Amino acid sequence: MHTERVRGGTDRSVPVGDSSICVGGVPDQTGTLRAVETPHDDPNGFLYERIADELAGVIQRGGLRPGERMPSVRRLSRERDVSVATVLSAYVILERRGLVETRPKSGHFVRRSRTAEVPVPSVPRRAAAPSRVTIAAGADELIRAMIHDRGLVPLGTAYVPAELLPLRKLNAILASVAREGGGPGAGYDELRGLLQLRRQLARRSVAWGAALGEDDFVTTLGATEGLSLSLAATTRPGDVVAVESPAYFGLLRLIDARGLRAVEIPTDPETGMDLDALEDAIRAAPIRAVLVSPNFQNPLGARMPDASKERLVKTCARREIAVIEDDVYGDLAFDDTRPRPAKAFDTQGIVLSCGSLSKTVAPGYRVGWVAPGRFRDAIERLKFAHAVASPSPTQMAAAEYLAGGDHERQIRRLRHVLAAQSRAYAEKIAAAFPAGTRVSRPQGGYFLWVELPDTTKKTLAVELQLRALDRGIAIAPGPIFSARQRFGNCIRISTGHPLTPRIEAAIVELGRIAELLLSG
Amino acid sequence: MHTERVRGGTDRSVPVGDSSICVGGVPDQTGTLRAVETPHDDPNGFLYERIADELAGVIQRGGLRPGERMPSVRRLSRERDVSVATVLSAYVILERRGLVETRPKSGHFVRRSRTAEVPVPSVPRRAAAPSRVTIAAGADELIRAMIHDRGLVPLGTAYVPAELLPLRKLNAILASVAREGGGPGAGYDELRGLLQLRRQLARRSVAWGAALGEDDFVTTLGATEGLSLSLAATTRPGDVVAVESPAYFGLLRLIDARGLRAVEIPTDPETGMDLDALEDAIRAAPIRAVLVSPNFQNPLGARMPDASKERLVKTCARREIAVIEDDVYGDLAFDDTRPRPAKAFDTQGIVLSCGSLSKTVAPGYRVGWVAPGRFRDAIERLKFAHAVASPSPTQMAAAEYLAGGDHERQIRRLRHVLAAQSRAYAEKIAAAFPAGTRVSRPQGGYFLWVELPDTTKKTLAVELQLRALDRGIAIAPGPIFSARQRFGNCIRISTGHPLTPRIEAAIVELGRIAELLLSG
Repeated sequence: MHTERVRGGTDRSVPVGDSSICVGGVPDQTGTLRAVETPHDDPNGFLYERIADELAGVIQRGGLRPGERMPSVRRLSRERDVSVATVLSAYVILERRGLVETRPKSGHFVRRSRTAEVPVPSVPRRAAAPSRVTIAAGADELIRAMIHDRGLVPLGTAYVPAELLPLRKLNAILASVAREGGGPGAGYDELRGLLQLRRQLARRSVAWGAALGEDDFVTTLGATEGLSLSLAATTRPGDVVAVESPAYFGLLRLIDARGLRAVEIPTDPETGMDLDALEDAIRAAPIRAVLVSPNFQNPLGARMPDASKERLVKTCARREIAVIEDDVYGDLAFDDTRPRPAKAFDTQGIVLSCGSLSKTVAPGYRVGWVAPGRFRDAIERLKFAHAVASPSPTQMAAAEYLAGGDHERQIRRLRHVLAAQSRAYAEKIAAAFPAGTRVSRPQGGYFLWVELPDTTKKTLAVELQLRALDRGIAIAPGPIFSARQRFGNCIRISTGHPLTPRIEAAIVELGRIAELLLSG
Repeated sequence: MHTERVRGGTDRSVPVGDSSICVGGVPDQTGTLRAVETPHDDPNGFLYERIADELAGVIQRGGLRPGERMPSVRRLSRERDVSVATVLSAYVILERRGLVETRPKSGHFVRRSRTAEVPVPSVPRRAAAPSRVTIAAGADELIRAMIHDRGLVPLGTAYVPAELLPLRKLNAILASVAREGGGPGAGYDELRGLLQLRRQLARRSVAWGAALGEDDFVTTLGATEGLSLSLAATTRPGDVVAVESPAYFGLLRLIDARGLRAVEIPTDPETGMDLDALEDAIRAAPIRAVLVSPNFQNPLGARMPDASKERLVKTCARREIAVIEDDVYGDLAFDDTRPRPAKAFDTQGIVLSCGSLSKTVAPGYRVGWVAPGRFRDAIERLKFAHAVASPSPTQMAAAEYLAGGDHERQIRRLRHVLAAQSRAYAEKIAAAFPAGTRVSRPQGGYFLWVELPDTTKKTLAVELQLRALDRGIAIAPGPIFSARQRFGNCIRISTGHPLTPRIEAAIVELGRIAELLLSG
């Protein structure tokens, strides 16, 4: 199973001597720690996982500070009335998540973070007038190498590896769907998308705090088609739209393809789009739509506070400006709470909220959706014009998978893995990159935004990318995240893949190249 | 299997008394005709089918005229050195295709066609200046009812029923693909589309006379996405494009969605777009692209002669005008020959040729492609922006299906069935509709274009559609096939479904309503 592979190969029992297991300082241990079985195989597993989650929460809320000693295994075992093995298992998990470290003969401690000493990236200055999107020569090839980086060290990808996804389960469902009755494929699906899938989305939207109905959704080909249709439904060529700065490069491509102009709104790496700047921009230019990703924005990982989401939606509703929301990373909160989308604050139907299963279940299935509010008819017309309908087999399998109930557990596991990976990558980058480098502190998703100290070298990131490619390493250079090719000294590092020695070496190599470029 | 259902339920032997079987006048018959087994179950089946095809060819080329006596069963049996049962089986097939009829005690005759006495629809006058596409209020609802006419008599659909498609086979392949190795779904597919699928398309293109390579294709979501991307790659909003008149309404939607203007070029129901008129239009307005469906155009069923295709491509290449070809019906030739697409005459890479498996294999899989010539890079960029990639599982299943070798046989059977249905529907319409009605003579595909005699009543078709809907019958009204709402006295009738008594009754009812509206 995928979670086993991440947490410790496929071993079902972990020897004490394993360097990644923290049993030092605990005297009453027998030779082997048997408890590290995958929780869905062992019902008791839920207990140690629950304890680990609780302790992680305490650490994340600051109840236990970096360097502080954790409660002893015996004390916790006594207080909770659980076995020592269970507590130890919880600590193994915490260590693997990068939250706890073991000091020989001293016990467990909250890990000191090297990242904590590294500043977060700066917020860009305000943008000038709206502009067309500039796409650098050769950017397409670079993006392609970055996305399809088979064979390359995968620091450029926008997806997690297969072993973190429930592909076996999903494909088994697809196989059974294909064999049921007549099977899928006859006729075209409903324009709005498969009803069973929309029902599952409606059911899940309750957890988002949005409580939408099955007819509030239109299914799409990943979130990307949702975003594309949303732009087409709310703008005409030549119109101005507001985007985050930096923004997901795919959005900028869409803006370019549709002949729109973009105003870049400064975006804080922690709290998201600067709403004062947005309001200034709205006063200065006739903005038709705001494109925003309030939850774990790509590339910053920023999470906009709920109050800001509400203000954003109100501001736009008052002026009849559409809010096109990319909520594709919303399920990947490191602290296990699903933040609300902007859609949850939408009383006027002005928000078109796009999501997908690409980041949590299966990118290659291309199953996504848009909750288009008052623009539903326009979205349906455009979807029909562009592709008549979405494919049936993949929608059917996705609907049945979501109905099956494994999804929440899958997301929960994925969050924990990604949280640990994000922290581990940040540590490595903090250690390997030149002094003065800034690194983002994402609260979800799987990207780190890395700002190199010299802001005068506009081609730094692209040069770094090219030299890295020569060495078989894929990264995403900053300028592709800006309509005006800003962020020449920034790169995005994907943290979706487990931090293997190969990847560690690649990060060291990137740091070395960066040092070289900065001194050159 | 699907073909059995069409040709005679699931019976494996057909009693002589069956009214649809023509054994009268042949004295040396035993009680039961055993030969009508489906050819893929019985290797001998190929022989009688081959004889039927040969005879059909002779009839279609005029070697045997309507009303003329067919060679006697005994004579053919002797001449071909085959059994009487084999010849009889060939005649059964010909009768089911509507080419031959049996007269009691006289033998087999080439069927006299009532359709032959009905004139073909008129060619519309030349269009005026380019115009925006007008979409009538309520047209969306009507199109939806037409496409998803579950429960309605399906004379409006653009697809054939499930039993005529190899869905069982395809879905079995999908199931096995889903279980193989890791299964599909991890990561995104190549931008250009699944390599195995593109290889199959390249292999098939040899038969089209186009001989394209695997890198000459980009896979899409049905042909529709191919057409949409092609328009986006070759035009800017406000540009003028030339379309057939009448044209497929989906194309007109795309033109509208992209903010283009259309010049409607008169299109002959038999030979397709009027190239003199096109050249006039090119001189009069700056046309950027010509949208054309040279093979079995929807809705007319016209087939453009190869010489005209060549002239069209040359004319456009000289002026750097893109040719966007919809070849989605190209495989459905009634005379069993696959006509060449315009792409086969493209030496300059100016043709973007779109096709799909929606009309022959599985509409709901949404597997299509575009051979974009010199516009490939632009198409790939746009495809990435709109949807990142196509879904993997459906492409994988389609590729394996095409590699399997059943496809050619499937298409061949489907052609025969559709040819027979087209003739049978035309006969019924000729009999049931008001005097002066004109009916197209498609040479492939599954539509009939019906022109009612009164050209002054601009709302005739829409009124007919609304009244028909009230009676549970779906049809497609003429004006949706025109940018300027022309063809107010025309309707499109789908002939994809076997002509059941229910459908026959619906045609009679349509004729009655038309009569009423014309006299009203």
